Amino acid sequence: MGSFLGQVFRIATWGESHGGGVGVVIEGCPPRLPLSEADVQPALDRRRPGQSDIVTPRKESDTCRILSGVADGRTLGTAISIFVPNEDQRSEAYSEMETMYRPSHADYTYEAKYGIRAVAGGGRASARETIGRVAAGAVAAKVLTTLFPQLEIVAYVAAIHDIEATVDSAVVTLAAVEVNSVRCPDAAAAERMIERIKQVRGEGDSIGGVIECAIRNAPAGLGDPVFDKLEADLAKAMLSLPATKGFEIGSGFAGARLRGSEHNDAFVMREGRVATETNRSGGVQGGISNGESIVFRIAFKPTATIARAQQTVTITGEAAELKARGRHDPCVLPRAVPMVEAMAALVLCDHALRQRAQDCIAR
Amino acid sequence: MGSFLGQVFRIATWGESHGGGVGVVIEGCPPRLPLSEADVQPALDRRRPGQSDIVTPRKESDTCRILSGVADGRTLGTAISIFVPNEDQRSEAYSEMETMYRPSHADYTYEAKYGIRAVAGGGRASARETIGRVAAGAVAAKVLTTLFPQLEIVAYVAAIHDIEATVDSAVVTLAAVEVNSVRCPDAAAAERMIERIKQVRGEGDSIGGVIECAIRNAPAGLGDPVFDKLEADLAKAMLSLPATKGFEIGSGFAGARLRGSEHNDAFVMREGRVATETNRSGGVQGGISNGESIVFRIAFKPTATIARAQQTVTITGEAAELKARGRHDPCVLPRAVPMVEAMAALVLCDHALRQRAQDCIAR
Amino acid sequence: MGSFLGQVFRIATWGESHGGGVGVVIEGCPPRLPLSEADVQPALDRRRPGQSDIVTPRKESDTCRILSGVADGRTLGTAISIFVPNEDQRSEAYSEMETMYRPSHADYTYEAKYGIRAVAGGGRASARETIGRVAAGAVAAKVLTTLFPQLEIVAYVAAIHDIEATVDSAVVTLAAVEVNSVRCPDAAAAERMIERIKQVRGEGDSIGGVIECAIRNAPAGLGDPVFDKLEADLAKAMLSLPATKGFEIGSGFAGARLRGSEHNDAFVMREGRVATETNRSGGVQGGISNGESIVFRIAFKPTATIARAQQTVTITGEAAELKARGRHDPCVLPRAVPMVEAMAALVLCDHALRQRAQDCIAR
Amino acid sequence: MGSFLGQVFRIATWGESHGGGVGVVIEGCPPRLPLSEADVQPALDRRRPGQSDIVTPRKESDTCRILSGVADGRTLGTAISIFVPNEDQRSEAYSEMETMYRPSHADYTYEAKYGIRAVAGGGRASARETIGRVAAGAVAAKVLTTLFPQLEIVAYVAAIHDIEATVDSAVVTLAAVEVNSVRCPDAAAAERMIERIKQVRGEGDSIGGVIECAIRNAPAGLGDPVFDKLEADLAKAMLSLPATKGFEIGSGFAGARLRGSEHNDAFVMREGRVATETNRSGGVQGGISNGESIVFRIAFKPTATIARAQQTVTITGEAAELKARGRHDPCVLPRAVPMVEAMAALVLCDHALRQRAQDCIAR
Repeated sequence: MGSFLGQVFRIATWGESHGGGVGVVIEGCPPRLPLSEADVQPALDRRRPGQSDIVTPRKESDTCRILSGVADGRTLGTAISIFVPNEDQRSEAYSEMETMYRPSHADYTYEAKYGIRAVAGGGRASARETIGRVAAGAVAAKVLTTLFPQLEIVAYVAAIHDIEATVDSAVVTLAAVEVNSVRCPDAAAAERMIERIKQVRGEGDSIGGVIECAIRNAPAGLGDPVFDKLEADLAKAMLSLPATKGFEIGSGFAGARLRGSEHNDAFVMREGRVATETNRSGGVQGGISNGESIVFRIAFKPTATIARAQQTVTITGEAAELKARGRHDPCVLPRAVPMVEAMAALVLCDHALRQRAQDCIAR
Repeated sequence: MGSFLGQVFRIATWGESHGGGVGVVIEGCPPRLPLSEADVQPALDRRRPGQSDIVTPRKESDTCRILSGVADGRTLGTAISIFVPNEDQRSEAYSEMETMYRPSHADYTYEAKYGIRAVAGGGRASARETIGRVAAGAVAAKVLTTLFPQLEIVAYVAAIHDIEATVDSAVVTLAAVEVNSVRCPDAAAAERMIERIKQVRGEGDSIGGVIECAIRNAPAGLGDPVFDKLEADLAKAMLSLPATKGFEIGSGFAGARLRGSEHNDAFVMREGRVATETNRSGGVQGGISNGESIVFRIAFKPTATIARAQQTVTITGEAAELKARGRHDPCVLPRAVPMVEAMAALVLCDHALRQRAQDCIAR
Repeated sequence: MGSFLGQVFRIATWGESHGGGVGVVIEGCPPRLPLSEADVQPALDRRRPGQSDIVTPRKESDTCRILSGVADGRTLGTAISIFVPNEDQRSEAYSEMETMYRPSHADYTYEAKYGIRAVAGGGRASARETIGRVAAGAVAAKVLTTLFPQLEIVAYVAAIHDIEATVDSAVVTLAAVEVNSVRCPDAAAAERMIERIKQVRGEGDSIGGVIECAIRNAPAGLGDPVFDKLEADLAKAMLSLPATKGFEIGSGFAGARLRGSEHNDAFVMREGRVATETNRSGGVQGGISNGESIVFRIAFKPTATIARAQQTVTITGEAAELKARGRHDPCVLPRAVPMVEAMAALVLCDHALRQRAQDCIAR
Repeated sequence: MGSFLGQVFRIATWGESHGGGVGVVIEGCPPRLPLSEADVQPALDRRRPGQSDIVTPRKESDTCRILSGVADGRTLGTAISIFVPNEDQRSEAYSEMETMYRPSHADYTYEAKYGIRAVAGGGRASARETIGRVAAGAVAAKVLTTLFPQLEIVAYVAAIHDIEATVDSAVVTLAAVEVNSVRCPDAAAAERMIERIKQVRGEGDSIGGVIECAIRNAPAGLGDPVFDKLEADLAKAMLSLPATKGFEIGSGFAGARLRGSEHNDAFVMREGRVATETNRSGGVQGGISNGESIVFRIAFKPTATIARAQQTVTITGEAAELKARGRHDPCVLPRAVPMVEAMAALVLCDHALRQRAQDCIAR
C-alpha cells in the first residue's frame, strides 16, 4: 500500500528503474486547472540524472507525457496519469547485486520482505521511483499557486558534509538556488561544496548533507490536530525520500536545549494580522499552520553506493567483498532539492483541499 | 480526518481536556487475544499527571474501561472501544485564554482553522488527547508480543536541556527506565535532570529534551517502499505527538556529516542470519526493517505554558501581557516516554499485519 | 476495518449488544455547526426497540450523550464522540446460541471468521450496532440541511410481505411517514401491513419487505466517476444494513426490461435549470447527481429469528432443533426506516464535502 | 477520489476514451506470483469492442502491457502498472455532444460537477474506463486461485429484455458461457437474446438485462461486520459499473415476500463441514461468507445511446433534438460479463488479504 499517498489530493506512483517506465496517477485534482507537460517537465529536469558534472552521468531525458485527465490544456477533474519511459538501462552493471547484498542498500530488506527482488538497478528502491513524486508535486504546486498566489516553496542545500551554508529562508528564491549545480544559494559555500563532492567522488566515496525548505505565505489553518499534524505529514513525506535520516521543523533539535521563555514565539500584530515575533515554531503550532513561514530541514546520509571495496555477504550467506560499478551520485542532495519541494507541495495541497472540505459553513 | 491512524490496525481517537472524557476505537485487532483493562492501565499510569513531583499536579486517575470488542477476557475481532472519563476540570484557570492567544500554543491556529475553539484546557490540543493513543498502543504492543515474543520497545529520556545521558540502546530495559521519575536510565544524569527540572520550574520556566526509543528483535521485512517506509511512518507518528520538533533515525543528522565509507553498515552473518556490523541505518534500509534494532530520537521543545509574563495579542488584536496560571508540566518528557512507545507499537503493529496480508503465498 | 466509513466525513462505530454500550466517533464534521443531543435523540427514538406494538419489546431508552467535539452548543471541528449505554441485557435468553448456530444468523460466520464470538445478543451482528450509524446520520443530516436548506431525505415502507403501498416519492413527508407504527404513508396499506405483522408474529413467524427512500433537492454534481459513483456508495451503505438483500435505484430491475427509447430521461429546461422529464435514472447519471430526486429501494428479508422450531447443527456438528426465545422484531422494516435515512445522509454528506474540496477553483 | 478502490489489495484506474490510453496501478499484490500479459489479455479480449456482431464495431485491440511490478515473470510485491493504449479515436463522431446533453448520459452531470468535460467519447464515463478494472480483476483472480485453488467466479447473462434464461449457478462453467456471443449458457434463450438484440439494433434502439454471478468454493470468513459486509462491498463494486441500476444477493427482492420460516437456510453437516440446505442467504450471513456459493444479480439498463431522435437541451438551455451517431453497443451485457467477474475478484481478493492480516494469531 506504500505507493499511495494523500487523503483528498491522492497519488499512486509506480515503476522500477528497469522496466517499461515510471509514473503516477493523481486523483482529486481540481478541474479546469490549466495543465500541460510544460508545467511538469521543469521539475523533472531539475531531478534528472546527467544534468551537471556532480551528479550521476546516467542518461535519461525523463520526458513526461500526460496520458489522461487533461483535455484542451485544462484538467478534467478525473484521474491524471503521467508517464515517463525508462531509457538508459544497463542491466550488466548490476551483476554483483544478484549474488550479494550491497551494504546500506535495500537489497537485503527487499529480499527479506518479498522473497524476491528486481536485481537490476535496485528496482523500486531506485531513485527513479521519485519521478512520480516530482511529477505529481508539480501538479500540486500549480494547484497551490492557483489557490494562494503568494505561496512559495523554496528548498535548497543548507549543508554538504561539514560545509554549512548561510541562507536567509525569508528571502531566498528559486532563481538563487538554481545559480549553481549544487543548489546552494550561498555562493561561497556552494563553491566549496562542489569542490568537496568532486574530491570525494575522486576518492571513490560519497557524502551527505542537509536540505532546508521554506514555505512562505501559506495560509493559517492548514493541518489537522492529532495524527495528521502538518509537521507530522511533512515529516512522513520527507522521511519517505530515499537516503533521509532526519527531519526537524523550526527550532528542531536545537530547540530541545532552550527554555520556554527563550523558545516561545511572542504574538504581535503585523499588517493587520496576528503574527509572531520569532519563528521557532517553524510556522506550525498545534499541528496547524499559523501563517508564518514553514521552515524545516532534512538530513540525507551519504550515498550508499561507493566505488571502494566493502565487506558484505552473499545471498547464500558467505562473506564477500563488493566493489560497486555502475553510475551513481556521489552526493544525492542537488537532485533531492526538487524532490523535497514536490513532497512539500503534495502535503500542503492535500491539507488545503481538506481544509476547504471541512470549513464549509459560512463564518 | 486527523484523528484516524493506520491502514489495517486502525484507530480513531477522540476527546478534549474538558468534556465527557477521552477515548479510542481500535479496528482490525486480531481476535482471540487475551485482553483486559489490566493490559492497558499500566501504560496510562505512566502517562498520567500527578505521578511524581516533576510533573503537573493535575489529578486524574485516568482509569480506563473497555466498552466493546472484548468478551470473557478475549478480543472478538470487532471494534474495541476504550474510554477514560475526565475528572479534574477547572475551567476557571483558563479565563485569560478566552481573551488572548498563549504564545507557542494552539489557541490562535485552532481559531484560524475552525473559527471556534474549546477555550478550557486547550481542547483537543491538550495532552489529554494522548490518552487514546497510549491506550491503543498498549493493545498494539500486546498484539506484537503475541506475534513476535522477543520483540521489545523501550523508550527513555536521552537528554533534558543540555544534560545528555549515556544509555546503551541494545540492553536498556523498561525496569531501568522506571527507576526514577524522569525516566532516564543513566542514574547520574537522571539526578541532574530532575534537579534541573525543579530549578527551572522554580524560575517559572520550562525545558525540553530528547527521547530515544529502541525497538529490539523486530522481524526483518516490516515497512513498505515509497511513501510508507517504516521510518516515514515512525516520523509521522512521533511528530504527531505534542511539543515535538524533530525526528532522526540511526545516524540521523550526524550521519549527514559522514562519508559513505564511514556510514555504510557492513553485512555479516550472525547466528545464522544476515546482520550488520554497525547500525547507522537504525534498523531500517530502503524503508524496510532489516532485523537490527530500530533506534530513533525525538526532539521535544520546552513546554509552552510558563509562569513568566509573556508578550501576546488579544483575540481582538490588542497587544497584551499573559501570565499563565493553571497546572502544567515544566518538562513534558517524563510523561512522553510511554507516548513514544505507544506510537512505535501502533506503527509496527499496522505494518506487521500489512506484511502478513501481502506475504500470503508460500515461499 | 469494517466499522470505518467515509473519506472526508468519516465515522467509526463500535459496540456489541451486550457490553458497556454502543457509539460512534465522527471526524471531519464542519466546525461551528449548532449541535446537541437534541439533534440526535429523535432519530435514535425512531430506531429504538419498544416504540410500538409491532416491534421487539426489548426495553432500551437509547439515550445518547455527546462526549466530545462540541462546546457551548457548537461543533469544534474535532472528533465528535457519541455514546449510548446498554441497559436491558438478558444473557440468559441466549443460552441455546452457545451450543448451536441459529439459521440465517451470523453465529456460524462470526465463528468461522474470528474463531470466537460474543454469544449473548449476537454481539456486533445485533441490531444495536446500528445506533452508531443512526446517531452519526443525524449529524450528517444537520450538516446537509445547513449546506442545502432545501434538501430532504424521506424514507418509508413501500412493501411488507406482498402488500405494496402507493406513495408519491415527490411529495411524501416525514410527518406522513410517522403517522403510523409501520412507517408507511399509504394509510390503507399501512393498516393491512400492521395487521399482517401481528398475524405473522402470532404464528411464530416473521416477514420482510421493501423500503423506498427519496432524496429531494440535492444539488447536481455529487458523486464521483468510476468506483465512488453515488449509487455505488448508496448501494454499499444500504447493503451494509442488517437483513438487506437488494438495492435498486430509479428504474431498477424493472428498467432492465425496457428499451432505451422507453428508458432515457429526456432533458428539458425547468425553472431555469436543466431537468429531466422523467426520472428513470433515479437522480443519478454517470454516478453523479443530476439535481432530480434520488430515489432508491432496499429489499429486507424476513427476520431470521422466529419462534418456530428450526433444523440446525450444534457447534460440535450434531444435528439439532432450535426454538428461539428472546425478544425480537417480527418485521425489521419499521425500525429500519431511520437507518436508511441515516445511511443516505452519511453518503451524501461525505460526497458533498468531497465535492467542495475538489471544486475549489472559481468557475 | 473515485478511481481508487480497495483497502489492502488496492487499485487506481485512469484514462478517458480519447487520450493516451487507459490503465491501472495495483498495490498490495502478493510477491512471487507468476504473472504476465498472458494472464490479463484474455479478460480484456472478452471485454473489448468488435468481438462479435452484437457489440459495437469500434476497433480496439486493447493490447495490454505490464510496465512495472513484475520481473522475470513473477510479481515483485511492488506497484503493478498495466497500460492499454487507445487506438480507434474518431472525435468527429461526437460533434453534437459539444453542444447538447445526451439523455441519460453523463454529459450534463460531468458538466455540473466539474464545469468542464471531455466531449469526445464521453471521457471518463466511456466504457473504456472499465479496462483498468478488468485488467486488475485478472490479477486479483490469479491471486485468489493461488490462495484457494477450488475457487471459481462465473458470471453470465441471465436475462435480456424480457427473455429469461434458466441456468444452474452451481455447475455453470466459463466454457459454457463462452459458447455464444451473448454469454448466456442457456442455448435456447441465448439464441432468442441474440435475435432480439439484432432486431432492436435494427430499430435504432437498445435493451438491457440481468447478469448473474456465482462465486463457488470461496472460504467461509470473508467480509467484515458493519460497513464492509461482503454483500455491501459487492453491491458497491457492481453498482460502480456503467449502466447498472440494481443489485440483489441470494433471495434478493423476491426474498422480501417470504416468511422467515420459508426463507431461513437450515444448517446441516455436509462433507464434514457446516453447510446450509438451501442458499437464500446467497453465501453471505451477517456480512461474512459462509462457504456456500455467493450468488448475486445485477440489473443493467438499456444503452443510453440510441439512433432514434430524442428530445434534449443544448448547453445554453435551448430545446433540441439529438440523433446519435457513432458506434455503440445495442446491449451492454455481453461485454459486461467479464467486468462483473473482475469486480467480484477485486472485492474477494481484498477481503481475503484483509482476513489474512487480522486472523494472525494461531487458532
